[in-house]
Amino acid sequence: MTFLYKADPVRGAQWARLFAEKAPQIPFRIWPDGSASADAEAVRYLAVWEAPHDLATRFPNLEVVFSVGAGIDQFDLSAIPAHLPVVRMIEPGIVAGMVEYVTLATLALHRDWLTYAAQQREGRWQALRTRVASERRVGVLGLGVLGQAVLTRLASFGFQCAGWSRSPRTLDGIECFAGAETLPAFLARTDILVCLLPLTDATRHILNRELFAQLPRGAALINTGRGGHLQQDHLLQALESGQLSAAVLDVADPEPLAADHPLWHHPRVMLTPHVASMTQPDSAVEVVLDNLRRHRAGQPLVGLVDRARGY
Amino acid sequence: MTFLYKADPVRGAQWARLFAEKAPQIPFRIWPDGSASADAEAVRYLAVWEAPHDLATRFPNLEVVFSVGAGIDQFDLSAIPAHLPVVRMIEPGIVAGMVEYVTLATLALHRDWLTYAAQQREGRWQALRTRVASERRVGVLGLGVLGQAVLTRLASFGFQCAGWSRSPRTLDGIECFAGAETLPAFLARTDILVCLLPLTDATRHILNRELFAQLPRGAALINTGRGGHLQQDHLLQALESGQLSAAVLDVADPEPLAADHPLWHHPRVMLTPHVASMTQPDSAVEVVLDNLRRHRAGQPLVGLVDRARGY
Repeated sequence: MTFLYKADPVRGAQWARLFAEKAPQIPFRIWPDGSASADAEAVRYLAVWEAPHDLATRFPNLEVVFSVGAGIDQFDLSAIPAHLPVVRMIEPGIVAGMVEYVTLATLALHRDWLTYAAQQREGRWQALRTRVASERRVGVLGLGVLGQAVLTRLASFGFQCAGWSRSPRTLDGIECFAGAETLPAFLARTDILVCLLPLTDATRHILNRELFAQLPRGAALINTGRGGHLQQDHLLQALESGQLSAAVLDVADPEPLAADHPLWHHPRVMLTPHVASMTQPDSAVEVVLDNLRRHRAGQPLVGLVDRARGY
Repeated sequence: MTFLYKADPVRGAQWARLFAEKAPQIPFRIWPDGSASADAEAVRYLAVWEAPHDLATRFPNLEVVFSVGAGIDQFDLSAIPAHLPVVRMIEPGIVAGMVEYVTLATLALHRDWLTYAAQQREGRWQALRTRVASERRVGVLGLGVLGQAVLTRLASFGFQCAGWSRSPRTLDGIECFAGAETLPAFLARTDILVCLLPLTDATRHILNRELFAQLPRGAALINTGRGGHLQQDHLLQALESGQLSAAVLDVADPEPLAADHPLWHHPRVMLTPHVASMTQPDSAVEVVLDNLRRHRAGQPLVGLVDRARGY
């Protein structure tokens, strides 16, 4: 019943130490160790960022596939046998990191930090009119665990908070919009738009010129979803025309962003290298071990992917 | 019983509108209107940023001096007759603005935004190791209304929070240090240091090389107090030596910062033009009117300055 880990090896070593301490009865291997044919038959559980293309034949006794990230858009689901449960990583460390990053990005846009950084480069000392949080409308696309946690924290600053999701949700103190027909109304009331959607065929390039045109003029964008959500050339046009005033991007398409891409040097864009939120080994291993117990007991897995929805 | 306002005229017009609405019986004037000798005798209340030097002789019937800011270091207290109460501005708008700014600055330092901004300018896509909030120790100098509110919000992110003040304070979930003899222990446990002290003779240039040397190597500084708290040349030396890793400064000495000062262009310094927190007319006028009622009723004023302490 080997547990095989295939992702960042530095964090893999932390996982190995935690498994040795908390579940010494489970043989834990780090790819490529444990992947050769003699060992592969023993592999029951796989935790991966990018799944091996021959997963189905190489590991005939596999029982569960865990993503080490919050999304599973890096998987080709058609290459993973239909009977195998695929599990997203929903763990407190990822949630806390995302709450920090989106709070930081929202406050930076709310308090004009990109403009002040530009003024600093020019040696200009000039105060801008400050808006109070209760005058600023923040909207989050995606009301999963991450979107909910982010909105709850932002509401504590007094922002006017709303969220949009495909299916109806209820959140205390947050205006919730559901379904495609409510998207225009959600966008029309949003000054700072945060994307925390899963990346699926339905959401690819959702952040495009048609969507930007429905925001109030001068709105700002935070993309902490996936690079594939954003039409990067449409963003540049919207910044140029003034329809959008600024953007904070933690993801790009491709990653790393092409060396000659104008987003690198745009004065109203803050770009970080996909670091908004990272799986934290301590809390991730707790969640995985809990899911292994659930699996053996025939209970529902936390973070189980609905293959029809794609998340 | 004229109320005379002498500060930013744009906000003065908002104060005038609010007074007309909420206290139409009180004649409200905006400097220089109301300051000529014929009118000056009627002035009972003065709300000012910089007090006129001849305040004592010009306004013989003055009863209260209000600062429109949270501090009173811009006043020469010796030029204000000893019998006149001097009142600092403690109002919810100032508090909310400061909580936003210090949260923004703390998260920016915690999540390496100055480094990522530098990498972006160089076209470099490179993730740094993320530390979790529970590994990061934030320390706030000054435990007045602002310091307390800031620490309470930062604690909600899971930072290890501590505060230091001259006299003992108790705050739920915050380690509180009091008195000069505890300062070294407070500094030794502080990775991100926030200055929210009042500026007095005792705190001028408190942020100097001796203090920086007591912080852990690589600590970061946020100055949202006054420019006079910081020895700017000592900060540059500490950044150069690596004793400090970064700084966010909302204040400078003088303001604006001298055009040729190296802080303008330091890659590990974020500089904003004294905008962390501004008095919000709506809530400020509420607080002032409440203090006028208290004054007439002989009750203690909220924000009354202790002249011996200087704040």
